[in-house]
Amino acid sequence: MAPGCQFASDNTAGICPEAWEALQEANLGHQPSYGDDHYTREACDSFREVFETDCDVYFVFTGTAANSLALASLCHSYHSVIAHSVSHVETDECGAPEFFSNGSKLLLAKGEHAKCDPADVARLIRSRNDLHFPKPRALSVSQSTEFGTVYRPEELKELWGVCRSHGVSMHMDGARFANAMASLGCSPAEATWRSGVDVLCFGGTKNGMAMTEAVVFFDKELSKEFAWRCKQAGQLASKMRFISAQWRRLLQDGVWLRYASLANAHAQALAAGLREIEGAEILHAVEANAVFAKLSPDVDKRLKAAGWKYYSFIGGGARFMCSWKTTEEEVQALLGAARG
Amino acid sequence: MAPGCQFASDNTAGICPEAWEALQEANLGHQPSYGDDHYTREACDSFREVFETDCDVYFVFTGTAANSLALASLCHSYHSVIAHSVSHVETDECGAPEFFSNGSKLLLAKGEHAKCDPADVARLIRSRNDLHFPKPRALSVSQSTEFGTVYRPEELKELWGVCRSHGVSMHMDGARFANAMASLGCSPAEATWRSGVDVLCFGGTKNGMAMTEAVVFFDKELSKEFAWRCKQAGQLASKMRFISAQWRRLLQDGVWLRYASLANAHAQALAAGLREIEGAEILHAVEANAVFAKLSPDVDKRLKAAGWKYYSFIGGGARFMCSWKTTEEEVQALLGAARG
Amino acid sequence: MAPGCQFASDNTAGICPEAWEALQEANLGHQPSYGDDHYTREACDSFREVFETDCDVYFVFTGTAANSLALASLCHSYHSVIAHSVSHVETDECGAPEFFSNGSKLLLAKGEHAKCDPADVARLIRSRNDLHFPKPRALSVSQSTEFGTVYRPEELKELWGVCRSHGVSMHMDGARFANAMASLGCSPAEATWRSGVDVLCFGGTKNGMAMTEAVVFFDKELSKEFAWRCKQAGQLASKMRFISAQWRRLLQDGVWLRYASLANAHAQALAAGLREIEGAEILHAVEANAVFAKLSPDVDKRLKAAGWKYYSFIGGGARFMCSWKTTEEEVQALLGAARG
Amino acid sequence: MAPGCQFASDNTAGICPEAWEALQEANLGHQPSYGDDHYTREACDSFREVFETDCDVYFVFTGTAANSLALASLCHSYHSVIAHSVSHVETDECGAPEFFSNGSKLLLAKGEHAKCDPADVARLIRSRNDLHFPKPRALSVSQSTEFGTVYRPEELKELWGVCRSHGVSMHMDGARFANAMASLGCSPAEATWRSGVDVLCFGGTKNGMAMTEAVVFFDKELSKEFAWRCKQAGQLASKMRFISAQWRRLLQDGVWLRYASLANAHAQALAAGLREIEGAEILHAVEANAVFAKLSPDVDKRLKAAGWKYYSFIGGGARFMCSWKTTEEEVQALLGAARG
Repeated sequence: MAPGCQFASDNTAGICPEAWEALQEANLGHQPSYGDDHYTREACDSFREVFETDCDVYFVFTGTAANSLALASLCHSYHSVIAHSVSHVETDECGAPEFFSNGSKLLLAKGEHAKCDPADVARLIRSRNDLHFPKPRALSVSQSTEFGTVYRPEELKELWGVCRSHGVSMHMDGARFANAMASLGCSPAEATWRSGVDVLCFGGTKNGMAMTEAVVFFDKELSKEFAWRCKQAGQLASKMRFISAQWRRLLQDGVWLRYASLANAHAQALAAGLREIEGAEILHAVEANAVFAKLSPDVDKRLKAAGWKYYSFIGGGARFMCSWKTTEEEVQALLGAARG
Repeated sequence: MAPGCQFASDNTAGICPEAWEALQEANLGHQPSYGDDHYTREACDSFREVFETDCDVYFVFTGTAANSLALASLCHSYHSVIAHSVSHVETDECGAPEFFSNGSKLLLAKGEHAKCDPADVARLIRSRNDLHFPKPRALSVSQSTEFGTVYRPEELKELWGVCRSHGVSMHMDGARFANAMASLGCSPAEATWRSGVDVLCFGGTKNGMAMTEAVVFFDKELSKEFAWRCKQAGQLASKMRFISAQWRRLLQDGVWLRYASLANAHAQALAAGLREIEGAEILHAVEANAVFAKLSPDVDKRLKAAGWKYYSFIGGGARFMCSWKTTEEEVQALLGAARG
Repeated sequence: MAPGCQFASDNTAGICPEAWEALQEANLGHQPSYGDDHYTREACDSFREVFETDCDVYFVFTGTAANSLALASLCHSYHSVIAHSVSHVETDECGAPEFFSNGSKLLLAKGEHAKCDPADVARLIRSRNDLHFPKPRALSVSQSTEFGTVYRPEELKELWGVCRSHGVSMHMDGARFANAMASLGCSPAEATWRSGVDVLCFGGTKNGMAMTEAVVFFDKELSKEFAWRCKQAGQLASKMRFISAQWRRLLQDGVWLRYASLANAHAQALAAGLREIEGAEILHAVEANAVFAKLSPDVDKRLKAAGWKYYSFIGGGARFMCSWKTTEEEVQALLGAARG
Repeated sequence: MAPGCQFASDNTAGICPEAWEALQEANLGHQPSYGDDHYTREACDSFREVFETDCDVYFVFTGTAANSLALASLCHSYHSVIAHSVSHVETDECGAPEFFSNGSKLLLAKGEHAKCDPADVARLIRSRNDLHFPKPRALSVSQSTEFGTVYRPEELKELWGVCRSHGVSMHMDGARFANAMASLGCSPAEATWRSGVDVLCFGGTKNGMAMTEAVVFFDKELSKEFAWRCKQAGQLASKMRFISAQWRRLLQDGVWLRYASLANAHAQALAAGLREIEGAEILHAVEANAVFAKLSPDVDKRLKAAGWKYYSFIGGGARFMCSWKTTEEEVQALLGAARG
C-alpha cells in the first residue's frame, strides 16, 4: 500500500465486491431499458422494506442531481431553500439547486457543527413574507453533515416542528446517509419520515457503488411526475439495471450498513490516533466517517511528505474521509506518518 | 437463447467484454475523483488521436444530457435550434434541449429518410429575422439518423455551407456515431470537423459501454467553460474513471469500430432476410444498425407470439436494432419466427 | 389625415380619452406603491363584476409576459402546451413561453381559421404518454384568433370536454378579448369560465390602454403564489396605479366594449369595401377587428404608393387592423387608395 | 397637504410635469410599434449625448427586469454575481437575477454604508476557482446605494481594478443614478464607463417617469442580441413611444438632473432638521435622496400618529425618501410632527 488519496474523499475508493458481483450478474443477457427491468423493480421494493413505508424511489447519477431535482420538485423559481451555510448544496454544487429550480434562492442558516439551528431556521422562515423576497419552501439538512456530525431524530423533529407550521418541506441530503444510520443505530424510518423528512437523497457512490444516488420520496404527492423531471434533466439511465442492481444487492442483508459501520469505525480509530499526536486536534465530534482535524504545520508537512492527499482548510484544518475500502493498515500508516 | 428484447433497442445489451475489463482494472486501488486521474487524461488523448485534432472532451451520463448541454453551449435562451422533425432531440428527450438552454425553441426541418434537407434548413434560417422570433443559432444533425441512414461527408458539407453563411453552428447527435463511421469508411475527422461539425455527442452506451456519452468540441471557443456547465447540471461523475476507462479501452485498437461494424453487418443480414419474407418490406436504406420494416399483421403477430419485442409504429412499421452483442443465431431466430 | 401605420396594428393607436383621464387623476398626489392603492383594489373588483365571479387579477406590462406567466403557472418544465400553429405564443413571442416555464414545449394543433380543431387537440393529448415526451398540461386558445375569427362558447366547451378528461387546463390569450366579446354578444362569464377557461389574459394595450394586460384566474388554486411569480419576472409595477386606473375606468360603463365594437364595425366596413374592389379578396371571416385580404399586385402597389403600412404575407396576403381610434375617414381613405 | 406616504418611497410620487407633457405629445396620432418610432430613436440619441459615447440603449418596465436582464447578458447560469449584502438585487427582487440567468448565484460582499469593499470583492473573486462553485463573472454596484450613499469615481475605479484583472464585468444598478449624479457633480461619463462600468441600469421611475428604466450598454459586445432577450422576457413595449418620449424629454435641458438635485436638497434639509431633534439620529451620510435615521420610540410614535408612512427597521431604524415631487412644506410638516 502506497500513501495517496485514500483519505482524500470517500469517492476515491471504487466499487465494493457485492456491488461488483451485482454488476456482473446484470451484464448477462439483455434487459429492457429505462428501468423496465426486474432489477429496478426489486431494488425499489428493497427501499420500501428498509424504510418500512410505501415510498417512491428514483435513481440518478450524482448527488448534485439528486439534491437539485429533489429541491426542484419542492420549489418554484420564486421560492427559497434554507440550508446550512456550509452545506454541499450551497458550497459545492456550482449553483445546481438554483439552475434546476430556475432560480430558487438559498437562505443560509447558522448552527454549530454544520447542523441547522432550529431558532435560526425559524428566524429565516419568518424574516420576510412580502412579494419582494423568495418565499421559504424547503429546508435542506445534510445527514451526516459536512463536518461529519449526525442529526439525532429528536433534532430533526425539532426542525420539523419549525417547518411544519410554515408549510416548509424537509429535504435530506444523504450523500452519507448510510454512515449516519450506522452511527445512529435507529431505524431508517425513524431517522427520516417519522422525523419529518419528505424526500431523502440516499447516497450510493460514497457507500461503495458507482454513479448512483437514490431519491426517496416519503410524500408521494411530491413525486407525482418526478420521472418526467429526471428524464428532462438527462438523469434517466437507459441501461438502468447497472444502477439498480447495485442497490438491490447492497440493501440486501444490510451490506450498505455494514460497510458504513466499517468506515465509521475507521474514522473513530483515526480520530483516536490523532488525538494522541502533538500538533493534531480533532475539530468536530466524529460521528460518521469524516475526521476534521487542526494540524500543526509540522504534522501537515510530514503527512504531505509521506504522500498523503487530503483537503486542507485555511488555518491548518484538514479533512480525512474513511470509506468502505479503508483498512486498518491505511489508518495506521497515516497515523505513523503524522507522528513522524 | 430465448426471444425477447434483443432487437428492441441497442441499449438492451449490456457492457462489452473490453469495457468490462477496463472497469475491472479501474476498480483496483484508489483514484482521484472528478476526472483528475490518468484514465481520464488518457481517454481524452485517445479522442484527439481518433479525430486527428486537439479537441476538447467531456463525459456525461446520457445522450439527452450530452445533446442538451452541447446545444446550451451554443445557444442563449432566445435562440433556436434547427433539427429534423423526427430527431431524438425533438421527439424523445422530454424537452431537455429547451430546459438546459432555458427556452431555446426547436425549429423542425424536413428531409427524406430523417436527413435534414439543406434547402429546408436554409428556408428556416431565413424565414424570420425579427425580434419576435428566436434567432436560429444551431443545426443539429443525427449521425446515424433516427431512421438508420447516414449523412455522407459531402451532405454535411452542403449543410455546413448553409449554416456558415448565417452564423449557425453545427451539432452532431452521434448516439450511434460509431455505426455511422463503420458505415462510411472515411476518417472520423472527415465525418466531423472537416465537414463543419463544431460539437459532436459521441455515443458510448449504444457502442457497448454503460452510462456514458462523450461531448467532443472541435471549436474550443465553445467549450471554454463547459466543465462548469456539466458540474452545475449534475453531470460530473465523482468516480469518473469508471466512465473514462471504458472509452480509453474502446478507442484503442479500433474496438469501437469493430463492434459497430458487427452490429451493422447483422442489420444488413436481418434486412436481407426480411426482404425475402412475404409481408415484410424494408422502409429505409439500411446504412447503420437499424432496420425499419413494414410488417403485415401476420408477420407482426408471428414475431410477437414468438416472444420478440420491438417498437411498432402506426401503420405496421417496426424497428429492429442490432448491437455489439447481436449474434447470427438471434438474427436467424427472428427471421425464422417472421417466416412462420 | 395622412396615410400611414393606422391599420398596421391595433397598437399603433395611443391611449383612449377615458384611459387618459384616468391617468391624469391617478397622477394627483401620492399613492402607495406596488398595487397597495385604491385604484388597484377597485380595478380588481371591476373584473369580478364584469366576470360575475370571484376571480383573481394581476396586471403585467405585455401580452408576451401575460401569456407566458399564465402558462408557467399551469406547467412545469417537463409539460407541454397545445396551441394553434399560427398562435401568437408560437409565432411571435420569441420563445417566451419556453423561457418562463423553463422548457415547456409547444405542441402545434391544426384547425381552420386559426381555431384549434378539437379532434386534433385530442390527438395531440393522446399521442404520447411516455416519459420521453413532455406531458400535455395546457391548451392555449386565442380569442379573437390571429386570423380575426372568434370562438363561440359552444366551441370552447367542446375543447373543454377534450381537455377536462385529460387533466389539461385551458388558457385564453385574449390580447383582443374585448373585440371577441363585442363580436359574440354573450356575457364575459359565458365566454370564459363557464366555457372552461381557467386563466384569461385580457388585453389592455389593444383596447385603448398603454402597457398593460390583465391576467385573470378563474381557478384560484392556480394563482396562489402568482404575485411572487410576477415580481420575480420583473412584472410588478411600482407605480401600479397608472396601470390599474386605466382598467378601473375602461371597465366602468362598458367603455372597453364600446371601443371594441367600434373597431369591429370599422373592420366590417373595411371588409365590405374591399370585397367590392377587383383584386381584393377577403380571406377569413371578419368577426373581430382584423381584416385579412388577398391583394393583387396592383392593389398592393396602389396602397403602398399612397403611404399605407400593413403586414404583408407571402402570396399577396395583407392584414389590416382596426382599433379604438380608427375613423370612418381612414377606412374610406384606404379603400379609395385601393380602388385607385 | 395631508401626511401620508410622501416619504415612504420615491415611487409614491407620480409622473413629473415634463414627462406628462411628453406623454401627451406622444399620444397624438399613430406611431409604429415596438420602438420603430422617432421618439425612441431620439431618446436613444440623447443617452449618447449625455454619456458622450456610442452606447446601446434599451427600455424595460422595472428595475428588477433591468438589473436581471443586464446581469443575464453578462452571466451564464454557472457564473456568479458579486453584490453587496444589502443590495436590491439580493434583498428585494425575489430571486429575479437567479431566474433570468437560470441560476447564477449571488455572492455577498461586505462594505461600510452599503458600498462594496474592494478587498472583500477581491476575496470573493479569488476564494474559489474550482468547478464546484460558480465562477464570478460580474460585480453589481448600486449608485446611489441602498443606504443613500454614493460611490465616487475613484472608488469605482478601485473596484474596476479588482474586476478587470479577473475578467469580471461591472454592472451598475442605477435605480437612483440621477440622484447620484446630482450629488457627484461630475460628468455621467466619468461616473460610468470611464470608471469601468460596462452596463448601467438607469432608473426612470424614481426620477419622475412611470414604468421605465433604461439599460445602457457601454460595452456593445455585451448587448449584441439584447433586444431578443428583452422581447423573450416580456419587456418589449408595443407602444414604446410612451416610454421613450418620457426619456427624450427628461434628458433634454437637464430636467432629470434638476429633479434629482431637488430631491437631494430636500433630503439634506430633512436630515438637518432631524439632527436637531432629540430622539433622532442620522445613520448614514446623506449623499442622495434617502435619509436613514434611528428614531426613539417617542419620535416614531409621533410621526405615525400624525399619519406619516415610512419603512421601519428592527431597532428603531427608519427610511425617508425624497422625490422630484417633495416640497419644503412636506419636509417641514414631517419635521414638525417629529418634534411633537
